[in-house]
Amino acid sequence: MDTLFSNVTVVTMDEDLRVLFSAFVGVTDGKISYLSRKAPEEQPQQIINGEGMVLMPGLINCHTHLAMSPMRGYADDVELQTWLSDYIFPTEDRMDGRCAKAGTLLSIAECLRFGTTSVSDMYFFSEDVAQAIADSGIKANMCRAVMLMPDQDFDFEKDERCREAVALKEKWHGYDNGRIRVDASIHAEYTSDHRLWDTISEYAINEGLGMHVHLSETKAEHEACKERYGLTAAQLLDCHHVWDAKPAIAAHCVWLDPEDMQLLAKRKVSAVHNPCSNLKLASGCAKVEDMVRAGMNVALGTDSNVSNNTLDLFEEIRAATYMAKGRSLDPKALPAQAALMMATVCGARAQGREAECGMIKPGMDADLIMLDFTQPHLMPCHNVMSHLAYCVSGHDVVMTMVRGKILYAAGKYTTIDLEAVVKELSEYVMPKMFGKKEG
Amino acid sequence: MDTLFSNVTVVTMDEDLRVLFSAFVGVTDGKISYLSRKAPEEQPQQIINGEGMVLMPGLINCHTHLAMSPMRGYADDVELQTWLSDYIFPTEDRMDGRCAKAGTLLSIAECLRFGTTSVSDMYFFSEDVAQAIADSGIKANMCRAVMLMPDQDFDFEKDERCREAVALKEKWHGYDNGRIRVDASIHAEYTSDHRLWDTISEYAINEGLGMHVHLSETKAEHEACKERYGLTAAQLLDCHHVWDAKPAIAAHCVWLDPEDMQLLAKRKVSAVHNPCSNLKLASGCAKVEDMVRAGMNVALGTDSNVSNNTLDLFEEIRAATYMAKGRSLDPKALPAQAALMMATVCGARAQGREAECGMIKPGMDADLIMLDFTQPHLMPCHNVMSHLAYCVSGHDVVMTMVRGKILYAAGKYTTIDLEAVVKELSEYVMPKMFGKKEG
Repeated sequence: MDTLFSNVTVVTMDEDLRVLFSAFVGVTDGKISYLSRKAPEEQPQQIINGEGMVLMPGLINCHTHLAMSPMRGYADDVELQTWLSDYIFPTEDRMDGRCAKAGTLLSIAECLRFGTTSVSDMYFFSEDVAQAIADSGIKANMCRAVMLMPDQDFDFEKDERCREAVALKEKWHGYDNGRIRVDASIHAEYTSDHRLWDTISEYAINEGLGMHVHLSETKAEHEACKERYGLTAAQLLDCHHVWDAKPAIAAHCVWLDPEDMQLLAKRKVSAVHNPCSNLKLASGCAKVEDMVRAGMNVALGTDSNVSNNTLDLFEEIRAATYMAKGRSLDPKALPAQAALMMATVCGARAQGREAECGMIKPGMDADLIMLDFTQPHLMPCHNVMSHLAYCVSGHDVVMTMVRGKILYAAGKYTTIDLEAVVKELSEYVMPKMFGKKEG
Repeated sequence: MDTLFSNVTVVTMDEDLRVLFSAFVGVTDGKISYLSRKAPEEQPQQIINGEGMVLMPGLINCHTHLAMSPMRGYADDVELQTWLSDYIFPTEDRMDGRCAKAGTLLSIAECLRFGTTSVSDMYFFSEDVAQAIADSGIKANMCRAVMLMPDQDFDFEKDERCREAVALKEKWHGYDNGRIRVDASIHAEYTSDHRLWDTISEYAINEGLGMHVHLSETKAEHEACKERYGLTAAQLLDCHHVWDAKPAIAAHCVWLDPEDMQLLAKRKVSAVHNPCSNLKLASGCAKVEDMVRAGMNVALGTDSNVSNNTLDLFEEIRAATYMAKGRSLDPKALPAQAALMMATVCGARAQGREAECGMIKPGMDADLIMLDFTQPHLMPCHNVMSHLAYCVSGHDVVMTMVRGKILYAAGKYTTIDLEAVVKELSEYVMPKMFGKKEG
């Protein structure tokens, strides 16, 4: 046994949502090897004292764009179109792979600090993003988002974006025993057309890849699609076999019709709910409870830290339950347990990693986070699950472990040289993207 | 000069919302005595290095019930009536002054840790709450909430609650040079009648006290009042001169009619918006922008940490702007600056302390908080105000000062013996209120 967490409160997130007090969790060769109220007889290499602490599965952030962190807070409180065309797109034009790598590392530092152990990332500069993910030790489903403009010729073999997507898959899919997985990706219905949908779907199905798509994020986009095609984006993409790729992630799903939910449930597409981004950009309030009732798997995401502006998934947990209650005027809507499941087991399912993580259970990867429950704002503690949903912040995380390796503990990173990242940000990224050193 | 903050980013929250970089803020005899981009010539007693830090006015929490913390997380995800009658009321019945004092101290520890320097508290066990507030050094407007049941005789001189309210005022109003102020309070329209409204209003006006009332929190309560009296609660209480007491605070205001907003603006009543509580209890979304347009002063509150479940006012700032954007589907709604004003200058106005705090300005009380902006989740920083609204958490606060005295810094309290509070909670409060030691 490599590591033993002793006398710790264990929130298993298993099928019975068991919470074990003063329990022991052992880690061997990157896997959870022991879980009991009794101490093991075997002598571990190291013991981590879990008194006053809560140990739970690492959180899974199923929709983000890690590389965008240099633009965090660059433009807020503006219309979506202004935000994109006046701020984001021109700045992204000045970005290069080196910026993307630094931005990704900065975001991963934030993820680990706030208790996220696995992400589903969508962006470009794929090689640089992959390198940062590989170096950091975090788990990731990655994809290269592909777009196609109407006036653009299309040939999968020659298209730069598609070539990058294929190169990403060739080099990184399955890396480090599957720590990195590569998905296929269509950026969104409104940024492409049937030529792309057919081709990428076929590619994904043939290669056995997952799919990651933005779906019905804004009302305008949802309505325009119906106007243009007489079908919703969910239905339209279904006709082009996009949902035949497994596992498939539809990010946002704010404006799904009831029929869309039925369809996506049947196709086993996971919705990724991004409540903070949807509120901040005023996209709307996704009907999570309706999606769940329709049988859909719903996971959580932060979206990028430009539209949010943090990668703290505990904030999304809270925002999800608050939004559900506020929208329905029902205080019983989306209770603490349900919101926590979205950030763990449902996230693992959305990533196709449900046999591997999302629970504390012997045999699963040791993707674990520990939280300090001895602070004034977490006292007293009548109900651990309630505290995790309604009181805890990512700041309460004191240790983040992926596959048995501690990546963050008490302010220190073991795989990320934060000082170097900050230097790179100030000396290279900021001048390159914004023409100045300081944010 | 007692204390000098050097090379710090100063968010003044003054009339021009100035942000000064690499600035100097001096504190003398509890007041802000110096603010400049240049270092002062005078030698201070102590220098606090503010490099990488942001200094801003302490946050003002205009509606809370500090003593309730022992019940934090005791009941969530249930109907309001079940919550009150099955959980809160029976537990409050077992509470005593000693529990209230410990609960208040625990809550103040949380407030200080998260950057709140002044609170408007409403509860009972007034003497114990006052003692805790006095000992802790926090600034507070306090009140004893008075209720009156229809079947109850009423005599102001003999009524236990009114006697407690008067005793509170006699002993504590103006304490420590006005650090504590005592307001009058009618708990709510639906928990009292005209006998109380007339009497308490007269008392408050004669004594020159402020007023603190729960107003139109739930739709049911708002509609029932109109049904019963043919007037909204805002209008009804106005007829009974409740709003003639100054300054007057109306907590919640979720269901105000447009005419209510006009009326309350004319009467200079401040609304206190509690977005997290209103979402969690599914009370609804207050129309903050409409209130502001009508000319009302709108401040922020957390409500108790039983209905929220934290006292982190930075969460309310973020929730307020998210809620405004989500409700209106307008990303420009309630921008960062406006939400920050609600938690500072508007809060000071609601408390009648606008000449004393809420801004960093020479002559004002040195109620200051410092935040660590060198962490990964706050990099880069294109816009300090945006970060304060959209990225910062109360956990980023590293120092909290009230009237020039540091009450919290880097995990340590100077006036609260946290260990003793925790011991009291576990050995006295939990057994007394819940019949067990552990939460």
